[in-house]
Amino acid sequence: MISTPNLDKLFSPRSIAIVGASATLGKIGAMPVTLLQSNGYTGSIYPVNPRATEIQGLPCYSSLSKIEADIDLAIIAVPASHACEALEQARPGQIASAVIFSSGFSETGDEGHQQQLRLQTLAKERQIQLLGPNCLGYMNLRENTYATFSPAPLGGIVAPGSIGMVTQSGAFGAYAYCMARERGLGLSFWISTGNESDVDVADCISWLVQDPHTQVIMAYMEGCKNGDKLKDALSAARKASKPVVITKIGRTQSGAVAAASHTAALAGDDAVYDTLFKQYGAIRAHTIDEFFNIGHALSVWNKAPAISSLGIMSISGGVGALMADEADENELLLPQMPDAMQERLLKRIPFASPRNPVDVTGQAITDPGVFIDTALDMLEAGSYGALTVFLAAAGSSEALWPHIQNFARTLQDRYPDTPLALCALLPPERRHELEKLGCLTFSDPSIAIRTIAAILKRNRSQPPAVIANAAKTIIWPEGNGTLNETDSLRILKQAGVPVVPFDIVSSKSAASAAAAQINVPVVMKIISPNILHKSDMGGVKLNIQGADSVGRAYDEIMASAAEHAPNAQIDGILIAPMVPNGVECIMGMHRDPVFGPVIMFGLGGVFVEILKDVSFRLAPFSKQEALEMIHETRAVDLLKGARGRHPADIDAIAEGLAALSQLAHLTDGLIDSIDVNPFIALPAGQGAMALDALVIRKSSS
Amino acid sequence: MISTPNLDKLFSPRSIAIVGASATLGKIGAMPVTLLQSNGYTGSIYPVNPRATEIQGLPCYSSLSKIEADIDLAIIAVPASHACEALEQARPGQIASAVIFSSGFSETGDEGHQQQLRLQTLAKERQIQLLGPNCLGYMNLRENTYATFSPAPLGGIVAPGSIGMVTQSGAFGAYAYCMARERGLGLSFWISTGNESDVDVADCISWLVQDPHTQVIMAYMEGCKNGDKLKDALSAARKASKPVVITKIGRTQSGAVAAASHTAALAGDDAVYDTLFKQYGAIRAHTIDEFFNIGHALSVWNKAPAISSLGIMSISGGVGALMADEADENELLLPQMPDAMQERLLKRIPFASPRNPVDVTGQAITDPGVFIDTALDMLEAGSYGALTVFLAAAGSSEALWPHIQNFARTLQDRYPDTPLALCALLPPERRHELEKLGCLTFSDPSIAIRTIAAILKRNRSQPPAVIANAAKTIIWPEGNGTLNETDSLRILKQAGVPVVPFDIVSSKSAASAAAAQINVPVVMKIISPNILHKSDMGGVKLNIQGADSVGRAYDEIMASAAEHAPNAQIDGILIAPMVPNGVECIMGMHRDPVFGPVIMFGLGGVFVEILKDVSFRLAPFSKQEALEMIHETRAVDLLKGARGRHPADIDAIAEGLAALSQLAHLTDGLIDSIDVNPFIALPAGQGAMALDALVIRKSSS
Repeated sequence: MISTPNLDKLFSPRSIAIVGASATLGKIGAMPVTLLQSNGYTGSIYPVNPRATEIQGLPCYSSLSKIEADIDLAIIAVPASHACEALEQARPGQIASAVIFSSGFSETGDEGHQQQLRLQTLAKERQIQLLGPNCLGYMNLRENTYATFSPAPLGGIVAPGSIGMVTQSGAFGAYAYCMARERGLGLSFWISTGNESDVDVADCISWLVQDPHTQVIMAYMEGCKNGDKLKDALSAARKASKPVVITKIGRTQSGAVAAASHTAALAGDDAVYDTLFKQYGAIRAHTIDEFFNIGHALSVWNKAPAISSLGIMSISGGVGALMADEADENELLLPQMPDAMQERLLKRIPFASPRNPVDVTGQAITDPGVFIDTALDMLEAGSYGALTVFLAAAGSSEALWPHIQNFARTLQDRYPDTPLALCALLPPERRHELEKLGCLTFSDPSIAIRTIAAILKRNRSQPPAVIANAAKTIIWPEGNGTLNETDSLRILKQAGVPVVPFDIVSSKSAASAAAAQINVPVVMKIISPNILHKSDMGGVKLNIQGADSVGRAYDEIMASAAEHAPNAQIDGILIAPMVPNGVECIMGMHRDPVFGPVIMFGLGGVFVEILKDVSFRLAPFSKQEALEMIHETRAVDLLKGARGRHPADIDAIAEGLAALSQLAHLTDGLIDSIDVNPFIALPAGQGAMALDALVIRKSSS
Repeated sequence: MISTPNLDKLFSPRSIAIVGASATLGKIGAMPVTLLQSNGYTGSIYPVNPRATEIQGLPCYSSLSKIEADIDLAIIAVPASHACEALEQARPGQIASAVIFSSGFSETGDEGHQQQLRLQTLAKERQIQLLGPNCLGYMNLRENTYATFSPAPLGGIVAPGSIGMVTQSGAFGAYAYCMARERGLGLSFWISTGNESDVDVADCISWLVQDPHTQVIMAYMEGCKNGDKLKDALSAARKASKPVVITKIGRTQSGAVAAASHTAALAGDDAVYDTLFKQYGAIRAHTIDEFFNIGHALSVWNKAPAISSLGIMSISGGVGALMADEADENELLLPQMPDAMQERLLKRIPFASPRNPVDVTGQAITDPGVFIDTALDMLEAGSYGALTVFLAAAGSSEALWPHIQNFARTLQDRYPDTPLALCALLPPERRHELEKLGCLTFSDPSIAIRTIAAILKRNRSQPPAVIANAAKTIIWPEGNGTLNETDSLRILKQAGVPVVPFDIVSSKSAASAAAAQINVPVVMKIISPNILHKSDMGGVKLNIQGADSVGRAYDEIMASAAEHAPNAQIDGILIAPMVPNGVECIMGMHRDPVFGPVIMFGLGGVFVEILKDVSFRLAPFSKQEALEMIHETRAVDLLKGARGRHPADIDAIAEGLAALSQLAHLTDGLIDSIDVNPFIALPAGQGAMALDALVIRKSSS
């Protein structure tokens, strides 16, 4: 666990100096002075500009050092070339934190990067916390702290609220600010991190987790340099039950290329981010609308239960079916109402469809009581995580508005924790009125359902299982680099990954003796660090049975090795039983440069090779997580015994994966990669085992 | 080609009688009288109600027959039980068409269904065109014909425009009307078809294709009973270059179940609708928002080129990458600007990213000329089907609005046919102003890109190839039911599907002679209608070479048959060459109850069995279409030679599929199903061939 920096002085300053403050309204250096003053910031404001004595009615200082007081936050609004200098002019210890608006740093190439390093060094020496450079700054909305030069607040202020927003991109951030205003969302903080020379998105998430006014965190990321910090921040958010919705760019090939040309440091594989968010309970949003829909919904439906099923009520059977389509695609279940309640509805509306979707038909418009009673019946049944109601054009009816209001009030009074979504076209003031009752409105019922699904189905389980200590005592062979097959298998075995029982023999008689022990047909394989394509040179023999045959095979393999690789170091011949009729799986570990060891699982052959049908998890993880990982592959039906096949021992695969993940975690930094191929899943109840493995240790550097 | 009924009197009536007209405002029978009068319908209006002499200022008639004039359209707004009677009271020939608002017909069960049949019979006898029953009626917006009881127009009228809208569901229709109003869309027609006892969605599409004011058709469907009519309607729309966007419910298991409980007749497999829409150039929308986004965009960007590539310009590199992600997922290409143009941009904005996405950076805000020049450069390059621009918060700036307007005007003047999407938050009046220039705005850039992708990538190719006559002369074996393997292969061969060369022999000597002719290892298989599991009873021998071995195999197979199936009818033994190293494919035909023969393609083994990795097309189709069909499967990489495999003869597979589709089309009604499994694709250039096939003829009924 990395300790979270205390960012109080940066994000809740009682004194702010603006270096490069300007009297010309609209200029970058004028904007924070304007915004702080006009919005009622109650701390001290010190404009700094050597060419002015007064700015926007405040006395102006020629440099930071001329200010007698210590300063919680210095805003740097001068060109990059003068930014360091401005801070240097302050007294050591005078400045606790700084927001650097200036661009012209790392984002512009080598020279700028040098400038940024200089800035970082200075800040470190003087223990100044930095936000930026090349950022739009931030706003603390409850304390009216506008440490930003974005003109967005000039178009109207966002109300203080429970959503903390942090974005790496200033342009995205400004747009998001405007969208929040348009949608009527309330923000606690709005932070843009820019080049992240010091404080990054993860730090801000951790800060927002600690902020009592923030209940939901919305984050926009372009990349991450410190994976552990991000993991900790997301863990803390989950622990505090503050959900996080994240948009991260670069989820496709084209997007990744564009992101790489945009961000200095491209960080890791996008699939790894995907699994990170999944494992740590963050919800990933792929579009700006989704980002806002989910963020907004989380702030209203903050106590939504973890029940992945939906109740649908509609005055149109057709649209009810359209909603069922969307629920199905989002893997929400649609359990039916209990029979008695179905009968009650049919008594009142004979041509209703009382299952789920419940179609109350257009007739219900003439009897709004049916709406309430049916909805209450549905919620009383208790099997729905949320309720979605399609009102069609009746939702915009003036005459029906009091009924709609009453409907929302009654339901939310009785079931305050159950998300209620009304699908109707309503003017903003009515939407807000319903929202105050805890009910969100959507014009598109499919979007309502997608949003609900994201919220109900988010991973709220606790962090990965604590790791057993057993694997810590792994005995390593000498040397470094690539381990041979038997050493690799031994490492796995020590870590609790099941491996095929095997012997290494160095003589014909030992071979025969070993085979006799095994007593079923065996495979024999030459073990040598110098022979890569063993089959091609006669180094592998399959399905050998009986002492004579085994002895003969031993001689043949050795002869073949002597002929084809006379100088090879021969470590012996591996003898192992032939493993019958299992399903070939592959598991592996590689190190992500940002997030550390990543475990991969897939089925052998075309599944991995052609279909790239694999799933990932960050190590370490539990058996439960491993089971989900297996079920994420399309090929899982093969393991489950599709089309009359034997079901495979999925449990044993999951245990193997979890053990591999613990090995990867505990040896992090020692191993570059592990390949277990094939990992054979035997029929259910009979286990699974690695037949071959390759462990590559970190090359000593 | 089914002849399209002339619906002039129904949809463009000069006289309208309202049976069940009411003086009580808001009642179903009052609504059309109110709407027709208040919106300036210029034809004659005849209220009919035996209990009134005047309604809403118009003389009222006690029955239709009391009206002297002939009536183009009778609106029936009385309970279901009186609907028939009302029409019967008219003089034969007096009424040309009728809209039946009344519910209580087929949608309510058997009794209602009988009512509906009675209505249909009467209408047929009297040649009255029927819309409904159980429908909301329709509106002809240009002629102010409000033959509806939906109160939606009371909330505000939708302007006449170029979009024709037809929906099976009234509730959906009313909602869609309100959405069109809210989004400022113009409609030519708004039609709700309800139970479709006569006129259905397909008829309405055909009508809208002929309507000179309609340029775009938006259709909402729950099911289709007459596939040929829908095919013809979509063909006509494509021929007339009037794009169709369709939402159809029931695309998932849950949705299909809900749809089945809602619509009386469940029609066909949803995958068949999917391929129908694809083949006939209709765009399928999955949500209401998508339906409107695409419909709206088609009406503005009606001349969008068929170029599947996109230019992206952004003032945020991050959001540019987010847009690239969306483009990638929607299979739009992102070609770069020519070098010279990239250099020109870099001279003005050194830290711009001049590739595509083009990141003009926040600096461009201070120099709006950069925007226009860069966008013009991009369009001049000529490789973009559309241009999407993200303006972030600058898009909402008052100060920049004139520049934005100028930007849109300049681009659309110079490149009027290239869709231009601006991503910004704008008030409705500004959105409409830009729309008049041909530029659409979106708050979410990802939605902009999805919409553009749907439009650029829609299938605009002409209808399926005309069929050769050759297959018409197919010679059928006698009898009916399931054909044996050799007869099945012969049918395929006659249709031009390549099959393995084979012989049927009935003696040991003939077997040896046949094998000698083939001169490579052969497969031998017993042919009998009574032996299903041939391998299990020793009826199949693989890899036999040489006259002696072949003769011995002949005897063994016959002996085995005599032992295991002494009473079986033996049609001979098939001898065919063993086919080496191909990729196993499967193709097949089944008849959809609504849309006729459907061809399926997939790869053998796990691909079809476990992964359901198959694609479909309605027969007949061209080789080009077959190629697309093959490329739709995830396993296509295997055929293309992934991971060092030999590329397979994809061309030959496509030819086989097209031939199969022609066979299916020409024998429609004669064959229930065809299975070709395996269909072996040999290495590229070496062809493909069916090794086994099963043709099941339609059982004579």
